[in-house]
Amino acid sequence: MENRKIKDELIYFNNVVNFSSTSLRNVPTREQAKWQRKTVVTLALTFLTSSQAKLIVWSKRAGKYEYSVTTANFLVETLKCALSLAALARIWNSEGVTEANSTTLDEVIVYPIPALLYLVKNLLQYYIVAYVDAPGYQILKNLNIISTGVLYRIILKRKLSEIQWAAFILLCAGCITAQLNSRSDHVLQTPLQGWIMAIVMALLSGFAGVYTEAIIKKRPSRNINVQNFWLYIFGMAFNAVAKLIQDFDAVMNKGFFHGYSIITTLMILNHALSGIAVSMVMKYADNIVKVYSTSVAMLLTAIVSVFLFGFNLTLAFFLGAIVVSVSVYLHSAGKLQR
Amino acid sequence: MENRKIKDELIYFNNVVNFSSTSLRNVPTREQAKWQRKTVVTLALTFLTSSQAKLIVWSKRAGKYEYSVTTANFLVETLKCALSLAALARIWNSEGVTEANSTTLDEVIVYPIPALLYLVKNLLQYYIVAYVDAPGYQILKNLNIISTGVLYRIILKRKLSEIQWAAFILLCAGCITAQLNSRSDHVLQTPLQGWIMAIVMALLSGFAGVYTEAIIKKRPSRNINVQNFWLYIFGMAFNAVAKLIQDFDAVMNKGFFHGYSIITTLMILNHALSGIAVSMVMKYADNIVKVYSTSVAMLLTAIVSVFLFGFNLTLAFFLGAIVVSVSVYLHSAGKLQR
Repeated sequence: MENRKIKDELIYFNNVVNFSSTSLRNVPTREQAKWQRKTVVTLALTFLTSSQAKLIVWSKRAGKYEYSVTTANFLVETLKCALSLAALARIWNSEGVTEANSTTLDEVIVYPIPALLYLVKNLLQYYIVAYVDAPGYQILKNLNIISTGVLYRIILKRKLSEIQWAAFILLCAGCITAQLNSRSDHVLQTPLQGWIMAIVMALLSGFAGVYTEAIIKKRPSRNINVQNFWLYIFGMAFNAVAKLIQDFDAVMNKGFFHGYSIITTLMILNHALSGIAVSMVMKYADNIVKVYSTSVAMLLTAIVSVFLFGFNLTLAFFLGAIVVSVSVYLHSAGKLQR
Repeated sequence: MENRKIKDELIYFNNVVNFSSTSLRNVPTREQAKWQRKTVVTLALTFLTSSQAKLIVWSKRAGKYEYSVTTANFLVETLKCALSLAALARIWNSEGVTEANSTTLDEVIVYPIPALLYLVKNLLQYYIVAYVDAPGYQILKNLNIISTGVLYRIILKRKLSEIQWAAFILLCAGCITAQLNSRSDHVLQTPLQGWIMAIVMALLSGFAGVYTEAIIKKRPSRNINVQNFWLYIFGMAFNAVAKLIQDFDAVMNKGFFHGYSIITTLMILNHALSGIAVSMVMKYADNIVKVYSTSVAMLLTAIVSVFLFGFNLTLAFFLGAIVVSVSVYLHSAGKLQR
């Protein structure tokens, strides 16, 4: 009897210890793992995006592209598809085809939507140049930041605190400030049509981003590689093929791989990996993190360019960089208490 | 007995009602009055400062001063002294000379310090032009914002929240951004001596402001006009007289009031009233409010100039104005919970 009691108490005690040790170790570990994954994909996106611009500059000779940009874009989409499929094949081999790593038809029908939105946005890009010059367009592109924030709030119904909204406005102002140059004031003379197109393009691009996040997050247990495969196959179909048709003759005459170099190959690889990093950020973080990540990448690119290409940093760049840094701080300091 | 009890209860009841009505009405009213006074002096400072720059432009003919700037400065100091003395005389007439509206010798000995600091700063101004051009100096002047914040924290031991510090950095970055022009990048080529002088000048000016606040706030019951009188009498002695000596010959040859017009008179009046408004802001608000007030005034001046002088606003101005506005919001949103 006495023995029995001691045994019961021992079992009880062991359970308590086990329980508390699991709760102490496991729960924070899962949170930690999540946080680690989020940090890794964000840093990867920042690093890949910041090296993008450098590779593009390097891939030009005497300021001109020797290769066909259209075929390069097509290869980027194809490579993204191939990489997702390869990852998927490995998973199928080890785990077999399960619900988590396969898909259903009713799920697939929404995947063309982001690709379609990007296609419309890219087609508009050919028309907006009639109203805005290239540096002006670079500046107007930053409206993406605001549209992403607004659509993130409306579509994904995720709340940002007032401080975080202030930070978001600062991020947009800071990015534009960092890109200011002597010709930037031209953008103020943009006619109404130009402004409308820029806003529509910002909304399309913001909507595509937020919608992608909605699709990916709707099924958290679904493997990211299945989701990516469907995203990229439609991206390839809509975007790259549409561009190929526009450029068909030039490609036929010169050949598909005309003018390709090691740098071109690296650039395609970088773009493909950046694309995958974007999807990962959507899955494990969100569009807000994506916007911050690419904005910080823009600043890093400029700083690295000083060393690589002897660019001069302007006072405007420093001011913009300060504002963006404060914005990053405020975004985390202003987190809503849940 | 019964009657007595009712009477006692009535008195008690009355007291309670009186007490609660005083505490309900009086306490918020005093707070409200304080808040109103603070708002009025802040708005007065903003309005006066923003019209200052316009009057200076108006007072010039064909881009040149027709009057002696030195005599005008001297008149500003004299007018401030005279106005404080006039206000003081009225108070002495109505209330008699009391402790609140008179002063002691041991109090007076600290009043020359801010005037001395401003004098040194103004003398340095003649030397910094050897290292920095005029637009560059305008930009470096914004370092005042940071030095005021730092010295406010160190000397007055008043705490700002982290959000408020972020707002203060943004205020500085936003003001510089709003003033950017095609020649601003020159400031980055400022030699080390120029930077050191700019920082020393910012520290002197910040220290003078914070020290003035410390003097004024040390005796809260002392009438502001007594305090102003002593501040201005030393200001007149140190600053204006020092400048007069430098310019003595020119004034003697041309005459003291040579080239004065209605606009010059208005400008002197405006400067004198702005000076008094600064003291009031120090008494009823603080240096941080002063810095925000003059920064917002700078933006208002630029906007008004568009209508009055047909100036064009630059993209940089809009971006700076957005950053300053967000900073104002963050300063109030980030208030420390006491």
